Amino acid sequence: MYRTKNCGELRISDAGQNVTLAGWVQRSRKMGGMTFVDVRDRYGITQVVFDHDTNAALNDAANKLGREFVIQVKGKVAERTSKNPNLPTGDIEIIADGLTVLNRSEIPPFTIEEETDGGDDIRMKYRYLDLRRPNVRRNLELRHRFTMEVRRYLDGKGFLEIETPMLVGSTPEGARDFVVPSRMNHGQFYALPQSPQTLKQLLMVSGMDRYFQIVKCFRDEDLRADRQPEFTQIDCEMSFVEQNDIIELFEGMAKHLFKELRGVELTEPFPRMPWADAMKYYGSDKPDTRFDMKFVELMDILKGHGFSVFDNAAYIGGICAKGAASYTRKQLDQLTEFVKRPQIGAKGMVYARVEPDGSVKSSVDKFYSQEVLQLMAKAMDAEPGDLILILSGDDAMKTRKQLCELRLEMGNRLGLRDKNKFSCLWVVDFPMFEWSDEEQRLMAMHHPFTHPKDEDIPMLDTDPAAVRADAYDMVVNGVEVGGGSIRIHDSELQAKMFEILGFTPEKAQEQFGFLMNAFKYGAPPHGGLAYGLDRWVSLFAGLDSIRDCIAFPKNNSGRDVMLDAPAPLDQKQLDELSLEIVEKSSK
Amino acid sequence: MYRTKNCGELRISDAGQNVTLAGWVQRSRKMGGMTFVDVRDRYGITQVVFDHDTNAALNDAANKLGREFVIQVKGKVAERTSKNPNLPTGDIEIIADGLTVLNRSEIPPFTIEEETDGGDDIRMKYRYLDLRRPNVRRNLELRHRFTMEVRRYLDGKGFLEIETPMLVGSTPEGARDFVVPSRMNHGQFYALPQSPQTLKQLLMVSGMDRYFQIVKCFRDEDLRADRQPEFTQIDCEMSFVEQNDIIELFEGMAKHLFKELRGVELTEPFPRMPWADAMKYYGSDKPDTRFDMKFVELMDILKGHGFSVFDNAAYIGGICAKGAASYTRKQLDQLTEFVKRPQIGAKGMVYARVEPDGSVKSSVDKFYSQEVLQLMAKAMDAEPGDLILILSGDDAMKTRKQLCELRLEMGNRLGLRDKNKFSCLWVVDFPMFEWSDEEQRLMAMHHPFTHPKDEDIPMLDTDPAAVRADAYDMVVNGVEVGGGSIRIHDSELQAKMFEILGFTPEKAQEQFGFLMNAFKYGAPPHGGLAYGLDRWVSLFAGLDSIRDCIAFPKNNSGRDVMLDAPAPLDQKQLDELSLEIVEKSSK
Repeated sequence: MYRTKNCGELRISDAGQNVTLAGWVQRSRKMGGMTFVDVRDRYGITQVVFDHDTNAALNDAANKLGREFVIQVKGKVAERTSKNPNLPTGDIEIIADGLTVLNRSEIPPFTIEEETDGGDDIRMKYRYLDLRRPNVRRNLELRHRFTMEVRRYLDGKGFLEIETPMLVGSTPEGARDFVVPSRMNHGQFYALPQSPQTLKQLLMVSGMDRYFQIVKCFRDEDLRADRQPEFTQIDCEMSFVEQNDIIELFEGMAKHLFKELRGVELTEPFPRMPWADAMKYYGSDKPDTRFDMKFVELMDILKGHGFSVFDNAAYIGGICAKGAASYTRKQLDQLTEFVKRPQIGAKGMVYARVEPDGSVKSSVDKFYSQEVLQLMAKAMDAEPGDLILILSGDDAMKTRKQLCELRLEMGNRLGLRDKNKFSCLWVVDFPMFEWSDEEQRLMAMHHPFTHPKDEDIPMLDTDPAAVRADAYDMVVNGVEVGGGSIRIHDSELQAKMFEILGFTPEKAQEQFGFLMNAFKYGAPPHGGLAYGLDRWVSLFAGLDSIRDCIAFPKNNSGRDVMLDAPAPLDQKQLDELSLEIVEKSSK
Repeated sequence: MYRTKNCGELRISDAGQNVTLAGWVQRSRKMGGMTFVDVRDRYGITQVVFDHDTNAALNDAANKLGREFVIQVKGKVAERTSKNPNLPTGDIEIIADGLTVLNRSEIPPFTIEEETDGGDDIRMKYRYLDLRRPNVRRNLELRHRFTMEVRRYLDGKGFLEIETPMLVGSTPEGARDFVVPSRMNHGQFYALPQSPQTLKQLLMVSGMDRYFQIVKCFRDEDLRADRQPEFTQIDCEMSFVEQNDIIELFEGMAKHLFKELRGVELTEPFPRMPWADAMKYYGSDKPDTRFDMKFVELMDILKGHGFSVFDNAAYIGGICAKGAASYTRKQLDQLTEFVKRPQIGAKGMVYARVEPDGSVKSSVDKFYSQEVLQLMAKAMDAEPGDLILILSGDDAMKTRKQLCELRLEMGNRLGLRDKNKFSCLWVVDFPMFEWSDEEQRLMAMHHPFTHPKDEDIPMLDTDPAAVRADAYDMVVNGVEVGGGSIRIHDSELQAKMFEILGFTPEKAQEQFGFLMNAFKYGAPPHGGLAYGLDRWVSLFAGLDSIRDCIAFPKNNSGRDVMLDAPAPLDQKQLDELSLEIVEKSSK
């Protein structure tokens, strides 16, 4: 070893010890005949002192050290005269009597500090330097502890971690696959798994009973801010269970993780909110329940008073922002601008203030009597000092989603979305299907293997769109951290499901034959769920993007700018794979 | 839950309890008015009794159960009259008072027993049924416990598990990459990693200090019996260490695993054998040291006595098979056949027996006096009753490899290769380079980032082929379970290495520029190793092939016969990727 101690562990009780440290030069300061060098490693920072009077040559050598040089230092631990209470090692320093430069460093392209001067692009290109910053490093440390705790918990509950293959078959249903040409099977391709969904179901058929895997999954989608082409899933499946068994076990895991990793004790059961309620009260299947501000539907109260916008609306709903009646005209205009942004798409916003005397003043006063406005305020539980914001539209679902955005924006403005406060819930009773305008058919909302609620099965023939599923999502602070369902284990029901989804029996057989065949040999009742690891760790770390909890993330074009991947192949490689690239212009 | 107890946990102390079990029908037997059904799940087998006299309808239902039906049984735990000492639950049975068929099963295509009647192909096609067999299931359970223990050990030593990307850049050096076309970057490809080698080195540059990852790796090679296109590596790297630090830490891990998973206490340090000795005494860089039978070189003794085969040989070496002098002529002929097989390629074999009176009788007596034969027997430590087997050839290395095969064969025949005995060692001081006849240049024996031994660095200029590396393999029972090296952390030395390996500076920059650039910013001294998880688990499980510790393995053509992957793509998918398949005939 190049060191006897690391840079984070020495304390006042070690004073007098001779030690060897190794690490990076964080900074160095010359003061009179003394040179102070802060040496950094993963574990911390320790101050090293070189004294010109004691050893001039050594002091000279120290003065030649540059930022990020890798050094080995020998010396004696001594109590500091001026201690640094911000540093765990701040009570001591090393009086150096030896220095070896293990490696030099060019001047890094940005400062290696918590707050760096480097922009996003340069930090990604030099990600190995970015990772030296303590806050980025801590995210990876948290991620490590997170997966350790997940494994410890699930192992304790009898789950087996079983690796499923990465080179599988392509399933055109769902998102786009990344594919891998097979050299040994001419003209054929593997696909990288979007999730091990069907494989974990086969593991249940195989009697593995309780499976989990922390596993890379792949989706070739056009990337948005918070998406990566490869991401990590905590994938779980259990046999002989009903929905409640799964929810209870994984709620236990969530509570364990909150306690161990964030020191947060969640003693109450997580609320279970039907999907229909989530949409009704929050306009979202992943409501942020850190704050209330539920939607109140105002159709009965506000329709039919001559205000044509509302009179023609399919939906009118409002939220009550507590204590925001003092919002200025400018602030209200900003909110109107906000909901009118194309990403949100509302036509406008109506507002009303509850004055100190209890009277209500709205932006549509000319259409509504004080009596009606009072009715509205009462319906909204609004009190003096509150601000009511109302949206309307001709598509209830769309308007609810707009109102959801407005609610979240108000939550931000009112400081109600504290990253250190956690509000968890289960959203349950999802619809089985959703209509796709693009495909002009019903699509599976979760996936085609989801079990319908027993009591809704008769409606599969009569009103499939109304059928609810045994599906559930775990939502924390408005983030869907995971979700799953009870699966169909009956091959006839599965066949019917494919039929509703517009698969011909041949197509279903071609794509999922292996699963339907497996179901003929004694499939147990089973179900499971999958968590998005990147998202959950980001949430625990208080990050805005999942990128910062990934060691080497890709940018929005799916590129790794550090590795410069993807890249063109050698012609020899293409030939071996029997592939030719079609010129873009020739298409 | 569909059960209150599993099928493996009930004991005599549970007698009288009312329980619900769920599982698969292993078998059912009708005896008079009683029907006995063995119900199986992952945890065991429990006998359930249906009595016609008590409940005729229930008994009738039980008689209709087929093999592998999934059932739920309610009943009372009772002490058995005739106990089954081979079953942990053998003291009890369930007197059934309820039966639900949860799912039916067609007759499985092979028996779900430890010893099955199913051949390899059918078992792979119905792998989900094969996995129901208790011996296959136990391999996956062992694999799970293995990775849990690896993580526990490394976490305790301060290692962080850090995920590296799966979509990386292609590096034509080394084995063939699997590649992934990028839709968003026209004409460009990702590669799947053959190992996270360069990425883990970047993590060391980033100061992560101690990294590990249990990770899928990919190699597009023509498959042999014990190779899979995707395999799992326990990948580790440490900073500020020398070779001995790595060996000690990972020897500790090996001992921990042996103890926890196999109950084997290895108290002695693992021997460290220089590569040159391994080749000299065992003809292999992964010697099976469960038994001795070291090679003895016989050039001095046997040359120059008129036996032209030996007189012209570049190498003559023998092994002494203790107590095998009684081998018949037929057995000796078999051994001669064995070494003459094309895979081994020896021209012939000479043998000599030490008779009870101490005299030596050999197959080449006419060339050698008893005096010379006695000298030989002495050199070989041969005693009365021993058999000496000798090979020679004009290429020392090739002949040693032939003699190695003969030694292993004799080890098998003499029962010296007990799967429950473990012999571990480190092979160290590997050559830095090996000559490639195909490429007509020196190739890196491990990889181009391996550090040469300090004392050999001057020879890089004068005699590179003689340079030894700070590289080490861990060998157990003749299997290389892992290996690694100290890495180069100096960009100049790295550049020199690329030069020796025949890279132009441009080519080196193109392929490994990101790493050489990183080395300019303060790379610490570092090193590591990687274990083949599949191999190590197979060794612990006593398997002949790695396939049986993999849930869903591929066959020798790289196919998953269960999923029927790889497969042709839809034209739409090819179009999106701008790819065209070149017809084989047109090449």
